[in-house]
Amino acid sequence: MQVFVHIVINLKKDNLMSKTLPDITKDFSEWYNEIIYQAELADLSPVRGSIVIRPYGFALWENIKKELNAKIIANGTHNASFPLLIPLDFFHKEAQHVEGFAPELAVVTHAGGKELEEPLAIRPTSETMIHYMFAKWIKSWRDLPMKVNQWCNVVRWELRTRPFLRTCEFFWQEGHTAHATKEEAQEQAEAMWREYLDMYENYLAIPVVAGKKSESEKFAGADVTLTIEGLMPDGKALQMCTSHMISQNFAKSFDMKYQDKEGNLAYPYLTSWGFTTRSVGAVVMVHGDQKGLVMPPKVAPVQVVIVPIFKKDGEKDEVLQQATALAEQLKENDIRVELDASEHETPGAKFYKWELKGVPLRIEIGPRDIAKKQIMMADRLGLAKEPVSFDALVKTVEEKLAHIQQELYSRAHQRMYANWYKKEKLTDFAHDLQEKGGFYQTGWCGNVECEKKLKEHKATIRCLLPEKMFDSCFACGKKSTNDILVAKAY
Amino acid sequence: MQVFVHIVINLKKDNLMSKTLPDITKDFSEWYNEIIYQAELADLSPVRGSIVIRPYGFALWENIKKELNAKIIANGTHNASFPLLIPLDFFHKEAQHVEGFAPELAVVTHAGGKELEEPLAIRPTSETMIHYMFAKWIKSWRDLPMKVNQWCNVVRWELRTRPFLRTCEFFWQEGHTAHATKEEAQEQAEAMWREYLDMYENYLAIPVVAGKKSESEKFAGADVTLTIEGLMPDGKALQMCTSHMISQNFAKSFDMKYQDKEGNLAYPYLTSWGFTTRSVGAVVMVHGDQKGLVMPPKVAPVQVVIVPIFKKDGEKDEVLQQATALAEQLKENDIRVELDASEHETPGAKFYKWELKGVPLRIEIGPRDIAKKQIMMADRLGLAKEPVSFDALVKTVEEKLAHIQQELYSRAHQRMYANWYKKEKLTDFAHDLQEKGGFYQTGWCGNVECEKKLKEHKATIRCLLPEKMFDSCFACGKKSTNDILVAKAY
Repeated sequence: MQVFVHIVINLKKDNLMSKTLPDITKDFSEWYNEIIYQAELADLSPVRGSIVIRPYGFALWENIKKELNAKIIANGTHNASFPLLIPLDFFHKEAQHVEGFAPELAVVTHAGGKELEEPLAIRPTSETMIHYMFAKWIKSWRDLPMKVNQWCNVVRWELRTRPFLRTCEFFWQEGHTAHATKEEAQEQAEAMWREYLDMYENYLAIPVVAGKKSESEKFAGADVTLTIEGLMPDGKALQMCTSHMISQNFAKSFDMKYQDKEGNLAYPYLTSWGFTTRSVGAVVMVHGDQKGLVMPPKVAPVQVVIVPIFKKDGEKDEVLQQATALAEQLKENDIRVELDASEHETPGAKFYKWELKGVPLRIEIGPRDIAKKQIMMADRLGLAKEPVSFDALVKTVEEKLAHIQQELYSRAHQRMYANWYKKEKLTDFAHDLQEKGGFYQTGWCGNVECEKKLKEHKATIRCLLPEKMFDSCFACGKKSTNDILVAKAY
Repeated sequence: MQVFVHIVINLKKDNLMSKTLPDITKDFSEWYNEIIYQAELADLSPVRGSIVIRPYGFALWENIKKELNAKIIANGTHNASFPLLIPLDFFHKEAQHVEGFAPELAVVTHAGGKELEEPLAIRPTSETMIHYMFAKWIKSWRDLPMKVNQWCNVVRWELRTRPFLRTCEFFWQEGHTAHATKEEAQEQAEAMWREYLDMYENYLAIPVVAGKKSESEKFAGADVTLTIEGLMPDGKALQMCTSHMISQNFAKSFDMKYQDKEGNLAYPYLTSWGFTTRSVGAVVMVHGDQKGLVMPPKVAPVQVVIVPIFKKDGEKDEVLQQATALAEQLKENDIRVELDASEHETPGAKFYKWELKGVPLRIEIGPRDIAKKQIMMADRLGLAKEPVSFDALVKTVEEKLAHIQQELYSRAHQRMYANWYKKEKLTDFAHDLQEKGGFYQTGWCGNVECEKKLKEHKATIRCLLPEKMFDSCFACGKKSTNDILVAKAY
């Protein structure tokens, strides 16, 4: 983290405008760090592993949140709020869960000037707390299904942190549900998994792979973990979000018994599913280029920036008046528009800044444009300018935004499949996997010893694939039960 | 807290329907506790002083949040996010601030299995963290004003807690701004104070008093604290929210220097302002009655409940179909409607439940109503039923909701002024103040020794009033500088 701190201090001393981004093809990791700070998505904080999400980054997260929240409500899940602090002994109620989370807990030992009798952990996830409450609330089959969600902060004490991708404190939604039957719980976990897939593909314009985690990669305390995996431009996989069928042990540990329709006591079947601020990091990585961010229009904090251009003082009033009128017209059509009328910066500096921030469309308007009742429009992908008449403005903006959304998805889709290799044996792909990354589809016998062989190459099974192409295991050569997707991962 | 726990356990054993609320006129405090749990606004958690906000309570908070957030954005303030954890030594940078908050801090001493070198406090408020970041970001007069807001959780280790009114963890928005001039900072603090006033009066239908805090009652580290005070039905005041002009000491402690227009180094002027989940408790107290909650329509989670009524199976389909069509029609008109079609409960049990939950309007629809193309409507205030034709439904609902909103405000307004007494001397009102509560307007010389005399009567100066009626101090009889409002408070 020290490195980051120095970068930021240097940035503040320099003039941002003259600072170029590291070469995205040669040093992707440095490019990522720099663009986060230069585009003012986030800044480092004085607390190890915690970031400050600045207004521009937070607006992106709020747009993502708004879309996903609508899906969660439509699923029949209700928002609620559960405590930040969880008694430490709650984690010990479920053996796998404590093993997974105990090493990462941040613990409050003192409060109100005294040592606490019982230490409290800051929630790393809320299964234990919510299951405790479910046990109070679920008494009869009539109380099922019970479906709650909270948008909140969680803390996991990670050793190596990177803005958005892995931070000690992060934001997410965590949904928790209880059902009368295993089938219904499975349908719930899968329904949210599909909504997550839709969020990534159709809102963030990021193609992803949906599959099941292997036993060793699943959530601490889950029977089944469904995952969404993306491929980043540096060849590493990013786990985008997960949805779990929770082990019945949780219901038993928290004595979550209810009376079923036949009058017998039964344990409900549980799910949990979460989607985090890591998605912001995914947007940065998947769509960014040498000029900076490229925001997918559907969630872009600013979809259109208007840069007024005038030289003489006499031109200023007319240009600003017309620019304001056009901005209003776009706003009325639910387009997120920013009129950058500040006089501290030249138009050129503004172009640079908004390209860096990845605004999908730029409109320039000057006295000569006004005379022709038109503006000049440039999109963030091509950057070639073309005139658009006032009359056609709203329609053109809507079409261009839809086109950019589609184009971003197509580019990323093409790249993912160009780096998706199908290989029979580990020896056929171990070198490439380690050196250039990518997705490697192969067969697997299901044996954990074979899975462990990937560790030598710093890779893991990202997920089991639904389709089956290979008959033999990549490691031992025995009969394969599933095709798997192998990659190095963030 | 033990008392609460037992209440909840009993509730779960009993049938909620048969449980009546404590007498609101005789035991307001017990009534408050019971209605919170019975209406499912919140539940106790296993962590001392933290509550679980259940979906119905959270929906109320989300509605409040949505309205207030729009005001904050319209003010030109941007949402962002700052870390939950703050280095403990940050609190020592401002002497008054540490004195005010140190006794209430919850402290993380261990994380990731190790003792931390430097303990971290869970934020009780974020002035220190945000001012640290402001010092990084504000370098030139061009960076001003800087205006950020975060919606977040904070923790203050309170000894006596009550759901929503005072909890160790609570939710709020905290806005923080920096300005070039004192006048501009003052205008900002006052602008948000006015927005808060508008929230309470015009959205929550709660009449309030806006005034300045005395020196001893202001925020730890503020030059001026502006407050909004309400009067609860039990005669106690509730501090609803505050807006502060922050002491220049903060800017100096965090070395927040910038270059002004003339090229000199200057310190910005700061404000902060917060509005919390306490507002939910205020809604419960101010509008509730013996039947339960009464939700102000503008923020009610459910504005209209539809209860379908059918006896024979043959009637069911027709009634549900018509009820669904009406619900859809209301939804299309942005009315928050719930169709309670469950068959576990009788219509009578449903009426009871939704009255308890304070839904402003109830619609009943049965076969005979459908034959007449009408529904029966009852409002939560009068409860007299009257027929409304299908054609007039949307218009009538809108009018009735507006009427209930107005009526709730009028009732509360009348009650506040009926319990607002104007008295010259402490001896004239000390007995009533202590015994029956209420607002007492009187004169004050400004001397803290006179203010301290109120402590004997368990009361405080809630605020200084803008108008002046009294010439002499309530305690010493010397010349008064301001009228003040005195009350016992939550």
